[in-house]
Amino acid sequence: MRWAVVLAGGVGSRFWPLSTAARPKQFLPLAGADPLILDAVRRVLPLVDAERVLIVTSQRLADAARAALPMIPPGNVLAEPFAASTAPALAWATTHAARHDPHAAVLSLHADWTVGDPASFRAAAVAALDLAEQQDALVTVGAVPDRPEAGYGYVVPGEALGAGHRIAHFVEKPSLDTAQTLIRQGALWNTGLFAWTAKRFRVEVAAHTPELADAMPHFDAGRVEAAFRAAKPVSIDVGLFERTQRGAVIGASFQWDDVGSWAALRRVRAADPAGNVTAGDAHAVASTGCVVWSDDGPTVVFGMTDTVVVRARGITLVTTADKAPDLKKLLDQLPASLTGERGA
Amino acid sequence: MRWAVVLAGGVGSRFWPLSTAARPKQFLPLAGADPLILDAVRRVLPLVDAERVLIVTSQRLADAARAALPMIPPGNVLAEPFAASTAPALAWATTHAARHDPHAAVLSLHADWTVGDPASFRAAAVAALDLAEQQDALVTVGAVPDRPEAGYGYVVPGEALGAGHRIAHFVEKPSLDTAQTLIRQGALWNTGLFAWTAKRFRVEVAAHTPELADAMPHFDAGRVEAAFRAAKPVSIDVGLFERTQRGAVIGASFQWDDVGSWAALRRVRAADPAGNVTAGDAHAVASTGCVVWSDDGPTVVFGMTDTVVVRARGITLVTTADKAPDLKKLLDQLPASLTGERGA
Repeated sequence: MRWAVVLAGGVGSRFWPLSTAARPKQFLPLAGADPLILDAVRRVLPLVDAERVLIVTSQRLADAARAALPMIPPGNVLAEPFAASTAPALAWATTHAARHDPHAAVLSLHADWTVGDPASFRAAAVAALDLAEQQDALVTVGAVPDRPEAGYGYVVPGEALGAGHRIAHFVEKPSLDTAQTLIRQGALWNTGLFAWTAKRFRVEVAAHTPELADAMPHFDAGRVEAAFRAAKPVSIDVGLFERTQRGAVIGASFQWDDVGSWAALRRVRAADPAGNVTAGDAHAVASTGCVVWSDDGPTVVFGMTDTVVVRARGITLVTTADKAPDLKKLLDQLPASLTGERGA
Repeated sequence: MRWAVVLAGGVGSRFWPLSTAARPKQFLPLAGADPLILDAVRRVLPLVDAERVLIVTSQRLADAARAALPMIPPGNVLAEPFAASTAPALAWATTHAARHDPHAAVLSLHADWTVGDPASFRAAAVAALDLAEQQDALVTVGAVPDRPEAGYGYVVPGEALGAGHRIAHFVEKPSLDTAQTLIRQGALWNTGLFAWTAKRFRVEVAAHTPELADAMPHFDAGRVEAAFRAAKPVSIDVGLFERTQRGAVIGASFQWDDVGSWAALRRVRAADPAGNVTAGDAHAVASTGCVVWSDDGPTVVFGMTDTVVVRARGITLVTTADKAPDLKKLLDQLPASLTGERGA
């Protein structure tokens, strides 16, 4: 049977002042009316029964995840004792699936993405799972880039493997110039939409991921806290995909966005003819390329270009689209009374 | 005796959303902790007893003026039956002063200015009153420009007259290029700080201001409403100063500003080292030349240049310093629910 694992433990400050440690990005309705995490689960439910959808999140966020996802059995929300990057989280979830079903195949995705076309997303997910099962491979879905993007990870395809390719190598967060070169050479965005069989995953982890060597027996025995204490934090990309010989990539053309900042809402939400995205009681007049998010009162921008204005939780933020990804630098300079609930 | 007349009937939308029709600019604490009108009255009280300070305003604003100015006798607040520009207002106030004191000299000023150095302002006011009395002239105080300013009126001095000069001519709101030329030629800003004797004012009005011909007998008889109905609206500049042969100008170097927009607060209030002016719970980080006014909650600007951000009466406005004088254009495009109390 096929399972889906939704990684939902993220914290962050890029959507301050709307986001808080108790309500990070994946719980915000950034793409539409519902939280991103609900969008993410709905996106996979046509493929995987709710009983086989697992949510991995922090203890702090577990109740919020259960509340946001009433269709998911509460026991399917796995609360990490502490954050240890993605490899321990996925080892836990994959072990959980294998215990119920030794022939499980796992699709892994993040709770805080937006996807333009859910049907194309599902087609890519099915192709990735098929490739993982047919070729006994660890598969990542590569999105066809529509722009050079320095902030993303790239995957370079190698020789053909079934419907996909082996992975030649990864390039993490290249310069813009390098990104352009990579794209010309056929590199894809490493989405983090992964597929593997539980059996192959465990074999490859045993062979290549010493960071999990002491943890796996604890996961097998259901001793989650001991497993996390025994694990060394490492991402699944570094701890497994960059090391295994059984990595594969399959290209896909659905619109995928990790919504890295307020400015990214211009790609994710419908814009007016001047390219402004507004949400709430927001008014953009004689302005272009602005993001105006106003939760608690009217906000009017007049004559602005590429500006981000957010009014949320009683706080107003005004910054540029260029500066929006750097909010952490801002928050480091503000009094704690403003930023206490900022997230990491 | 010397009297002061403070013109306080203005309405306007340049300080939206803080300003409303019921609380226009002169009632806002734009320069410091107190409303501009209170600053204006305090500025003249060392020269003129409160019993001889007259406030001319609208009926709608009369009670607000009395409340803002507890030191002024309530009967000294003259409420116009309707707005008719400055000539009828000043004719009324001058007649009022002359009835108490046939030898009255009148100093006329506006309630919504800011002045950098009140002592220099008073020195200029005394010099203007002296010149008015000694030369039997209608005097305007000309401020030495510290920048070309297209929005102001300019007065060009002619031949010497006592401590001042006769007025050669006026230039209203020149282009920036013309303003630069005028300044090189010695032109001054026509502040609207005026001085005259009641006797000379009445003689010159009789000779040059037909718009007031039918009104003056009513003013003399104390029939204010009839006087306003009989008057044709005209400014004192057009209706008298541009026509009389007895106009004079006296230069002064006090810092004078009519605070024409939110952006003008950068000249009027103390700025941080990067040139940002903040008021209320406002924070400017990595920003330059911004005005951030936050009345009802924290406002943070990050990486902005020459931007105006105002949070007042539950509304947030974001615009550029260049656009700030054009708020009327904005308000014409907003729903009435936002702008109902905007002012004219």
